[in-house]
Amino acid sequence: MRHGESTWNLENRFTGWTDVDLTEKGINEARQAGRILKEAGFSFDLCYTSVLKRAIRTLWLTLDEMDLMWLPVVHDWRLNERHYGALQGLNKAETAARYGDEQVLVWRRSYDVPPNPLSADDPRTSYDDPRYAGLKREQIPLTECLKDTVARVMPAWDDSIAPAIRAGKQILISAHGNSLRALIKSLDGISDQDIVGLNIPNGQPLVYELDADLKPIKSYYLGDQAAIEAAMKAVASQGKAK
Amino acid sequence: MRHGESTWNLENRFTGWTDVDLTEKGINEARQAGRILKEAGFSFDLCYTSVLKRAIRTLWLTLDEMDLMWLPVVHDWRLNERHYGALQGLNKAETAARYGDEQVLVWRRSYDVPPNPLSADDPRTSYDDPRYAGLKREQIPLTECLKDTVARVMPAWDDSIAPAIRAGKQILISAHGNSLRALIKSLDGISDQDIVGLNIPNGQPLVYELDADLKPIKSYYLGDQAAIEAAMKAVASQGKAK
Repeated sequence: MRHGESTWNLENRFTGWTDVDLTEKGINEARQAGRILKEAGFSFDLCYTSVLKRAIRTLWLTLDEMDLMWLPVVHDWRLNERHYGALQGLNKAETAARYGDEQVLVWRRSYDVPPNPLSADDPRTSYDDPRYAGLKREQIPLTECLKDTVARVMPAWDDSIAPAIRAGKQILISAHGNSLRALIKSLDGISDQDIVGLNIPNGQPLVYELDADLKPIKSYYLGDQAAIEAAMKAVASQGKAK
Repeated sequence: MRHGESTWNLENRFTGWTDVDLTEKGINEARQAGRILKEAGFSFDLCYTSVLKRAIRTLWLTLDEMDLMWLPVVHDWRLNERHYGALQGLNKAETAARYGDEQVLVWRRSYDVPPNPLSADDPRTSYDDPRYAGLKREQIPLTECLKDTVARVMPAWDDSIAPAIRAGKQILISAHGNSLRALIKSLDGISDQDIVGLNIPNGQPLVYELDADLKPIKSYYLGDQAAIEAAMKAVASQGKAK
């Protein structure tokens, strides 16, 4: 599940590793996701999320609605959103007006072209943030293209999530548009070109049923399909000048 | 920290392993605890709580106020409240009116006399609760005296919490009146007789500073000392007929 709407989704700003919270709408989306999962009879053994509060709060609200607050939760920085470099904090429409829709689309939707990096002394870097204190400095990105995000997310799948699934655990992952793209790209074998066009709506539970080799048997969004279509279109239309 | 006021604290019922939630007052206590900890300059590396939502929600609200939602949290059933056997769900004052203040004080305040156990087919047992699915049936209590609670809590200290502290981690524990009594009894070397008279107020951060051998250098409640005194007296006066 992607987190519910965040304050910077609402303000149409590039967020990346900035630790913004959910909006009221995002809170409601997360609660609704929990109700939908519970009504559909889902339960879980183990949860994964990032170290960013929009994903953590989405998970908490979902677990609260499911009466599963006691479940173990792994907070893995590798599930963080794609780092957006020097664009972090900028308004998407203003950035598009300044650099052109096309350039912003390249930054947002090319697989291997990162935005300009933060400079190492930019106050927006994560170097002094205690949640990354256990990492080497070179592990903390200053910018990422989606390819970089995939390269950092997949070890979390390989060394932590996949072994838990193989051990028989039902897993709930609350994460971000691009860290989820990384997982979906791998699970569904989506090409570099096609993955950048995949839009994941906020706060809608996406179910993967896997076989013994962790290949998808089927995948589907739970809930109101028209609302999910609308939410996907809303994501796709971000980052245009108007 | 003991959890904030729960619905059954308010209704003056024996709670034990029953998974009741916080009251509005309890929510405010937990948030206030987070503000007090943050203002006093505390931070943490690792959190422990039980598998009961009144302790988990207290922790979540505290972490939310401290902007530390990303901290790792261990949910350990061994930090659960003392199991209250056949008294679980009964009103403390009604129980006192029926059995006498003295008998209830024996159940609440003797170190080694448990209340009557739940029968194995009582719907109040925890046998079918998924949060205890990994335990052997004989590990799931049907009643406990404080001595039993101590015997189950201390392995959590010895094999999990104490090693983390020795490794240099600052620890936040959100738990229950009797699981905290177990820890305090051990840390402060309190006798069996005296520990039953120790009243731990809801939602007040209790700080232990430990030396290299994990012996207390000092311990103290943070926050408004008059409010803490009043909260201790309120706990002490529960379980009387009027």
